[in-house]
Amino acid sequence: MQQFLEESKKISREIATLSGETKNKVLNQMADALIEHCDFIVHNNSKDMKEAENNNLSLDLKDRLLLTADRVKAMAKAIREIAALKDPVGKTLDGWVTENGLNIQKVSIPIGVIGIIYESRPNVTSDTAALCFKSGNVCVLKGGKEAHNSNQAIANILRNVLAKNKLPEQAISLLPDSSREGVAKLITQDKYVDLIVPRGGEALIKFVSQNATVPVVKHDKGLCHTYIDKYADGKKALEIAINAKCSRPGVCNSMETLLVHKEVANYILPALHEAFVYQQTELRGCEETRKIIDIQCATVEDYDTEYLANILSIKIVKDVNEAIYHINKHGSGHSECIISENYSTINKFLDEVDAACVYANASTRFTDGGAFGLGAEVGISTNKLHSRGPMGINDLTTFKYKILGNGQIR
Amino acid sequence: MQQFLEESKKISREIATLSGETKNKVLNQMADALIEHCDFIVHNNSKDMKEAENNNLSLDLKDRLLLTADRVKAMAKAIREIAALKDPVGKTLDGWVTENGLNIQKVSIPIGVIGIIYESRPNVTSDTAALCFKSGNVCVLKGGKEAHNSNQAIANILRNVLAKNKLPEQAISLLPDSSREGVAKLITQDKYVDLIVPRGGEALIKFVSQNATVPVVKHDKGLCHTYIDKYADGKKALEIAINAKCSRPGVCNSMETLLVHKEVANYILPALHEAFVYQQTELRGCEETRKIIDIQCATVEDYDTEYLANILSIKIVKDVNEAIYHINKHGSGHSECIISENYSTINKFLDEVDAACVYANASTRFTDGGAFGLGAEVGISTNKLHSRGPMGINDLTTFKYKILGNGQIR
Repeated sequence: MQQFLEESKKISREIATLSGETKNKVLNQMADALIEHCDFIVHNNSKDMKEAENNNLSLDLKDRLLLTADRVKAMAKAIREIAALKDPVGKTLDGWVTENGLNIQKVSIPIGVIGIIYESRPNVTSDTAALCFKSGNVCVLKGGKEAHNSNQAIANILRNVLAKNKLPEQAISLLPDSSREGVAKLITQDKYVDLIVPRGGEALIKFVSQNATVPVVKHDKGLCHTYIDKYADGKKALEIAINAKCSRPGVCNSMETLLVHKEVANYILPALHEAFVYQQTELRGCEETRKIIDIQCATVEDYDTEYLANILSIKIVKDVNEAIYHINKHGSGHSECIISENYSTINKFLDEVDAACVYANASTRFTDGGAFGLGAEVGISTNKLHSRGPMGINDLTTFKYKILGNGQIR
Repeated sequence: MQQFLEESKKISREIATLSGETKNKVLNQMADALIEHCDFIVHNNSKDMKEAENNNLSLDLKDRLLLTADRVKAMAKAIREIAALKDPVGKTLDGWVTENGLNIQKVSIPIGVIGIIYESRPNVTSDTAALCFKSGNVCVLKGGKEAHNSNQAIANILRNVLAKNKLPEQAISLLPDSSREGVAKLITQDKYVDLIVPRGGEALIKFVSQNATVPVVKHDKGLCHTYIDKYADGKKALEIAINAKCSRPGVCNSMETLLVHKEVANYILPALHEAFVYQQTELRGCEETRKIIDIQCATVEDYDTEYLANILSIKIVKDVNEAIYHINKHGSGHSECIISENYSTINKFLDEVDAACVYANASTRFTDGGAFGLGAEVGISTNKLHSRGPMGINDLTTFKYKILGNGQIR
């Protein structure tokens, strides 16, 4: 493993200096190759599907695992879109001349070797491989066991394109040892690996955070809130709350807890209740809430739970301060929203809530690279440093200072 | 300890929203207070100096520990300079409107709670406390045991100024338990601590890197190279090499290994030899070098050693590629320099050397917040992510997205 990663590090220097033209040509060839070898991918995916059947995987998981000709086409399209993005490497981020004439330039460069650990959906394999290649990085991918054959097939096709272009195949690799021990090795090889991106369940994130010596950009849970303020527009409140909870309850940017200002609770809660019942959402409320609408009781654990399901906890708060306090205490720093028409209250909320994305009067569901206009994303970072929120292609770069002198000494 | 850090986190929300005006007023009062209580500081420092005498600390360490009235004045001046810096908080770093009308703003914000672990010099206490406060952060400082009384005195003075301004004193704190166990606790409280900055020896850096679950910005060693190319200007080569090694051998941005192109070795090495002998620098060379000048033999360990002393290893390389290869293999990613007049060779070196600061024709000694024009620095980061190279006040911030909507749902 060490030898493999040492080699990854070595070739990362070659990949880092590829021109944008070369990278885009290769990426478009990769998209062509996926279409050309669609049958091969689907055939290998069917092995994983059979295994999933044998292991009684849930319908939802099987759907995430499944690849069809249409889905392969979508994968190819995603790669072409990544090729079309502006090259994130070589940008002058800042620059100045010092008093003694040193010309200092801060320039974006690739990170190097990036390890990405993710779960079942096999399209993540081609997406992240393309994002890493576009940004001049070598990737080491560790997908879910259940997608093993699909991931292998996709990686082989992408690697063949690299080889045809006389580029080192290992620039896109699956982790050779995908056991827990293999992962443990990957995340501690800080001499050769520059960044680990874990996307997955809490146990994975915890394992990686506690054991990695390589820097980690976590894609942790999203325990998102929407706060309906005293000065909320009722129509917006209703539409945004329903959208934030019900449009896709299983994703990280959906709402888990609704906070309602006590002075509008009597007016807004019955309408919300009716709308959520229509959406078959299970509601759990605090004592004050239950005096107004007839729902289940929320326990203390509810406010710390990312349901990822059509369940919502509701709490009545006395003002925006209590809302901010509750969010900073129970939130996961992902996406938080205030619905209000009051200028000062909104500013207070936007300033004081500690989260990657803080919304005024819009659904938290917009936290997404595509919706932000950043293009394809590696995921949603819950880190506070390096990358925060939608992790686009620019977050796959770091920088160096180039300093041009003329004999200066100190 | 957990309770203490929980409180630090809580008050970090208050410190984060202070206005620039308030922060600068308080900082200038802190500078005044240091001058006013100069005797108190010097008195407490004398206790540390006595202890140092009893423990037979080296002259160098004792000099680093010593505080005089002049040094206290310099500390006060540094705080005033920090107050005069532009507020790094609240800057709009980027901003755009999406197709559906969401107004997205990427805004700089304080990091939160920062733990800083450092060694003997007590002025670091006031410098880092002021930098953290200016950038809206709460700091938890763990200084060297040998400076305990000095650090306590300085911190008390600064805290009194906070209290007088009705601000929470705990915004500037010394770590309550400064044992190894205390540090181990600090670096694993990722719920309350947002960043750890270790400045110190290799053992400390290793301990923190391997055990922290809080993100770490390392201030690790500087194993810096200067490469004299075939097309070097001889005068610049001589001046820069001597400066990079001899102006202050004990600091991280000084040169440890000199690489010389084989085609200029015969011409440049005798002159360098003479100049270094004059500077009393101990030279250790490869076999090829020793055919030209009569110096000691460099072992394989030499090329991996940060001497921090007036010792230099020399190696002859066959071209810029071998120089780059050697640097990327043995360097610590800190500061590297090429001396050349050849445009393409310089560009190749600047592009392919993997380090925070890559110089053409200037001494690596310029890697420093002040020399870069960034103002006071927390140190020199050897991280590749978040902060790289001189870590100024802007690196003590992160960002959030503020998204202003008008009822948008997805």
